[in-house]
Amino acid sequence: MTADTPGTTNTTKPADTFVRDQWYVAAYGSEVGRELLARTVCGEPLVFYRTEDGRPVALADRCVHRRYPLSESALDGDRVVCGYHGFTYDTTGTCVAVPGQKRVPRTARVAAYPVVEQDSFVWVWIGDPARSAGTAPPRAPWLADTENYTTVCGMEPLDARYELLVDNLLDLSHETYLHGGYIGTPEVAATPITTEADDENAIVRVSRHMDDAECPPFYARSTGIEGRITRWQDIEYLAPCLYLLHSRIAPTGVLPEADGSDPNGFHTEITYAITPSTATTTYDFWAVSRDFARDDEEVSRFLHDFNREVVMQDVVALNKLEKVIAAEPDTVQELSINIDTGGLAARRVLKRLREAGRAAGAPGGAETGTAAGAAR
Amino acid sequence: MTADTPGTTNTTKPADTFVRDQWYVAAYGSEVGRELLARTVCGEPLVFYRTEDGRPVALADRCVHRRYPLSESALDGDRVVCGYHGFTYDTTGTCVAVPGQKRVPRTARVAAYPVVEQDSFVWVWIGDPARSAGTAPPRAPWLADTENYTTVCGMEPLDARYELLVDNLLDLSHETYLHGGYIGTPEVAATPITTEADDENAIVRVSRHMDDAECPPFYARSTGIEGRITRWQDIEYLAPCLYLLHSRIAPTGVLPEADGSDPNGFHTEITYAITPSTATTTYDFWAVSRDFARDDEEVSRFLHDFNREVVMQDVVALNKLEKVIAAEPDTVQELSINIDTGGLAARRVLKRLREAGRAAGAPGGAETGTAAGAAR
Amino acid sequence: MTADTPGTTNTTKPADTFVRDQWYVAAYGSEVGRELLARTVCGEPLVFYRTEDGRPVALADRCVHRRYPLSESALDGDRVVCGYHGFTYDTTGTCVAVPGQKRVPRTARVAAYPVVEQDSFVWVWIGDPARSAGTAPPRAPWLADTENYTTVCGMEPLDARYELLVDNLLDLSHETYLHGGYIGTPEVAATPITTEADDENAIVRVSRHMDDAECPPFYARSTGIEGRITRWQDIEYLAPCLYLLHSRIAPTGVLPEADGSDPNGFHTEITYAITPSTATTTYDFWAVSRDFARDDEEVSRFLHDFNREVVMQDVVALNKLEKVIAAEPDTVQELSINIDTGGLAARRVLKRLREAGRAAGAPGGAETGTAAGAAR
Repeated sequence: MTADTPGTTNTTKPADTFVRDQWYVAAYGSEVGRELLARTVCGEPLVFYRTEDGRPVALADRCVHRRYPLSESALDGDRVVCGYHGFTYDTTGTCVAVPGQKRVPRTARVAAYPVVEQDSFVWVWIGDPARSAGTAPPRAPWLADTENYTTVCGMEPLDARYELLVDNLLDLSHETYLHGGYIGTPEVAATPITTEADDENAIVRVSRHMDDAECPPFYARSTGIEGRITRWQDIEYLAPCLYLLHSRIAPTGVLPEADGSDPNGFHTEITYAITPSTATTTYDFWAVSRDFARDDEEVSRFLHDFNREVVMQDVVALNKLEKVIAAEPDTVQELSINIDTGGLAARRVLKRLREAGRAAGAPGGAETGTAAGAAR
Repeated sequence: MTADTPGTTNTTKPADTFVRDQWYVAAYGSEVGRELLARTVCGEPLVFYRTEDGRPVALADRCVHRRYPLSESALDGDRVVCGYHGFTYDTTGTCVAVPGQKRVPRTARVAAYPVVEQDSFVWVWIGDPARSAGTAPPRAPWLADTENYTTVCGMEPLDARYELLVDNLLDLSHETYLHGGYIGTPEVAATPITTEADDENAIVRVSRHMDDAECPPFYARSTGIEGRITRWQDIEYLAPCLYLLHSRIAPTGVLPEADGSDPNGFHTEITYAITPSTATTTYDFWAVSRDFARDDEEVSRFLHDFNREVVMQDVVALNKLEKVIAAEPDTVQELSINIDTGGLAARRVLKRLREAGRAAGAPGGAETGTAAGAAR
Repeated sequence: MTADTPGTTNTTKPADTFVRDQWYVAAYGSEVGRELLARTVCGEPLVFYRTEDGRPVALADRCVHRRYPLSESALDGDRVVCGYHGFTYDTTGTCVAVPGQKRVPRTARVAAYPVVEQDSFVWVWIGDPARSAGTAPPRAPWLADTENYTTVCGMEPLDARYELLVDNLLDLSHETYLHGGYIGTPEVAATPITTEADDENAIVRVSRHMDDAECPPFYARSTGIEGRITRWQDIEYLAPCLYLLHSRIAPTGVLPEADGSDPNGFHTEITYAITPSTATTTYDFWAVSRDFARDDEEVSRFLHDFNREVVMQDVVALNKLEKVIAAEPDTVQELSINIDTGGLAARRVLKRLREAGRAAGAPGGAETGTAAGAAR
C-alpha cells in the first residue's frame, strides 16, 4: 500500500512544507494600491504596492538595516522609505538612500519578487526568480471575464496548514456533513467519485456526477429551480495553489446538447487559491463565478454571503483540526477510503513538487549575493 | 533524607505525570446526556454521551479518518456520526458506516473506554481496559444519598498540574492564609497534624483535631453556632483521584457519645475529585454534603456560593503557581516541614502508582490492534 | 571588519543576555511603599517594599516552601507573611516563622538583594551581592534636584529585548522617521554624529550638533521659540542601565558664553533607565527634566503627555521588531552604517560586561548556602 491509496497513513509534519519555484496568489489586484500591504507567503514576509503607473511590486518586507518591516513604512513616489531610519528602496529592491551619509553601501538591497497580475489576482513567484522566466501562473479566466460571468469573492485567513484545506477541497463528501443545509445533500457523500492524477502537469481531477439529487439552498435560491437536479462536480486542482470546481446543475434529466452546448444548464465556476502563509496558517481566497442571473444583485449578494458562511464553516473546522494535529503526537494515523483518492493524489503531487523545489536549490527567493538574499 | 520526609526536595516535571490503570471522574452524571461532551482525561481526548436507554458511553474523541473531534459531531440514536465526513460509530467504537462505499474497513474503530456511574459521578478507566475487570472506583456514598445528606457541588477547570491541587488539599494549613475569613482561622495553621500512609491501598490519611477554635464564617452561617468550636478535619486521599475531608464541628467540649453516635455534632463531607486533564490542567470537582439544615435552601445557596469562592481562591493561587513552575528552571528546590507530611506521602504514593501503571504496559488505553488504538 | 564597525553582522540571541554584577533601576522610589511590588529584573523575580522606617527592601519573590510568589502576600510590620502557608521572612530574607511548629529550619531563607535609593529611583544589584560593596549606581542628579529642574516621568513595559531599546536610543536618526512631527526633523537624520567609547568605564558617548535646524513641536511648544534653532544632542550611555541625553536648544546662532555659562540656552536632561526584565521584555523608564518654564504646569503636562506619546511610538515599533526577530532564523543579517557606530559600540561594551559578569562566577544573586540561593 502506498501513501496515495486508501489505507492507514501517518500524517505529515509542517516542516519543509512549502512547494518552492511556484506562483502563488498573494492578493486580489484590488488590494494592492498605493498603501503598503504586508503578506507572508510560504513563510516569506513580503510587502506589496503599486507604482504610480500601476505596476504591482513585491519586495522582501525586512529592511536590511535593522530588519524593521518595510510594510510599516511610507511610499515616496515609487520608493519605499523605511519607517524606522529612512533606508530608501526602489522597485528593484535596491537601496538608493540611507541617513547621515551620501554613500550607499553596495550590498544594501532587499529581494524583489517576480509578480504577475492575472485573472484579478496578484501572483508572486516563491523560489529562485531565475526559474520564473518563461512560466506563467495557471488560469481562472472567468474571474476577469465580466462579459460572460458575474463573480463574488473574498479571502479568509485560516489558522491551519494549507494541506488541511487541500484535503478538504479535494473530498467534497464533507459537504453533506459540514455544510448540510447549505451546499450539502445526502447524494454528495453517497455518490462515488472518479479520480485522475496528471503527475506530469501536477493536476488532480476528481469528478462526481449525481443524476438525481436534492437541490441544496445554495443553488435553489440562486437559480430558482424547485425540484430535484442533475448535479455535476468536476474538480481540477492545479497544485499547489489553484483549485477549480466546475459545477453544472440542471433539472433532473436535462443534459447538454449533442453539440456540446448547454443552454439549459446552470454553470458555476468555483475558484479557490490556497496560499500557504506560515507552516500553520493559510490564505483562503474564494470566488464564485456564475453564467446565470448575471445582473441580479440580490443573487450576487446571496451567493456572496452564503458562500462566505460555507467557507467559514470550513475555517472553523480546519482551525480545530490544526489544534488537534499540533497538540498530538506525530505517530497518530489516519484511515483513508475511496473518497480520499483525490486528496491522497494531491498529497503525492505536492510531495513531488516539494522535492523538485528543494532539488532546484536551497531556499532563498531572490537575487544572490545580497545581504538580505543571503540571509533568507 | 527521602523524598517523603520534610526537607529540601526538587520539584517534579510534568512529563509522564499521569497514573494509568485507574478510575477517574470525568463528569457529573448530570453532565452526560444526549449532547456530546468533550473531556480530556490524563491527556486522552474523550467524548461522552448517554445511550437512549440511559447508559453512559466514552469513546476516543478522534475520528479514525482525519482525526476530527467526534465531540463536534451529532448523535444518530446511539451512534456518533462524525461531523466532517460522516464516519459512524456504535457504542463499542466500531465504525459501522463510511461515506461513498458499502464496505467498512475492518480496522475502522475508535477506542471505547470502560465507564461506571457511581455516587453521582461518571468515572472512566484510563489505562489497559482489560485491567479494569473486577475493579470499581472508590466510594463517596453521601453524594447520592439524598436521604441523609444535602449536597451542593461544582467543577472548576484549573490551569495547573494536578499535583499542585493534591499538595494544596493535603495541607489544610493554607486555609489560615489563603482562605482567612472564609474557612481558615489561626488554629488550623497552629495545630499539628497526624499523617498515616496506607501504601498498599494507596490511601493517605491526615488528621487535625482542634479542641477549641474560632468558628469560621463557613460554619457559623450554616450551623448557627455563635461561640467557639471543636473542629475535626479527617482527610482520606484515595490516590489518585478521590479526596475526602470528613469534617465534624460542634460547640467547644461537645463530643460524640460513648456509643459512637454524635447527635450534637455537625457533619460535613467535603469531596474533591482531582482529575488530570493535560499535563498542566486539571478538572477540580468539588462537593459539600451536610447532615444538618438539610432542607434549608438558604443554607444550600450560601454553602454553594461560599465554597465556590474558596475553590476559586485556590484556583487563582494554583494557576499563578503553575506559571511560576513552568517558567523557572527545574533545579529550583522546595523546603518541606511537618505540615507537608501528608502531601509528601501523597507524592510517594502517586510515584508508586505511576510506576505500577507504566510497568503494566506502554500507554494506550483501549482495544489492541485497531488503527486508533495503535495510534494513541 | 569587527562587530563594532559598520557592515554586515549577525544579530544576537537573547540567551545569556543579561549583564550581571550591576545596578539596575527596579522602580521609582514613589512606587515602593507598604504594598508589595513585584518586578522581575534580569530574569530574577523580586518583591519590593519599604520598612516602617522608610528603607526599601528587595527579596527573592519565591517562598522557599512551595515557591509561591511572596508579592501575593501581606506585610506584618517589616516582615513578609507568605499568602499561601504563612512562612514569614524578615528584611534579610531569613525565615522567622513557619506554620504548625516552633522550630524554623536552619536553611529557610530567601535571597535579599542590595538596594540603593538614589536620584528618585530604587536601584537593585543583580549579581553576587559581595561585589556590590564599594560600588554605587551611576548618577542622574537632576531627577531629584527640584531646585534647578522640573521633571516629568513615566515607565512603559516593553515586549522586546533590552538590546533593541539600546539600539534605538543610541541612534537618534530614527527621530526623523519614527517621531516626525514630534521630536524629529530632517536635520537629525542628515547630520553626522561623533562617537566615543570609553571601554574602561563602560560609557558610550554620541554627539550630534545641528547649527541650524527646524524646531520640532516638542521644543517649540515648551520653549516658545518660533524660528529655527541650534540643537545639540549629547548622549552618554552608562552601560548597561542608564542613558542620558543632554539636550541644548537655542535660537540659531545663540551659543553658550565664553565662560561656559549659557543663560540663553534651553536645557533638557532626558533620562532613560533600560532595565531588562526577562530575555525579551524590558522596563522602559523615562524622564524629562528641564531648566526652563519650571513652574509652568501646562508645559509640564504637555511634555509629559507628548513625551509619553513618543515613547509609545518606540514601544510599538520595538514590540513589532521583537516579533520579527523571534520568528525568524538567527542567520538573518543586519547592515550597519555610520549612524550605527554608537549602537555598535554599546553592543561591544555590553558584550564585555556580560563576559566579565560571567567570569565573576556562576549566576546566582545572593547569599550562598541557602535553599533558595542554591536554587536560583
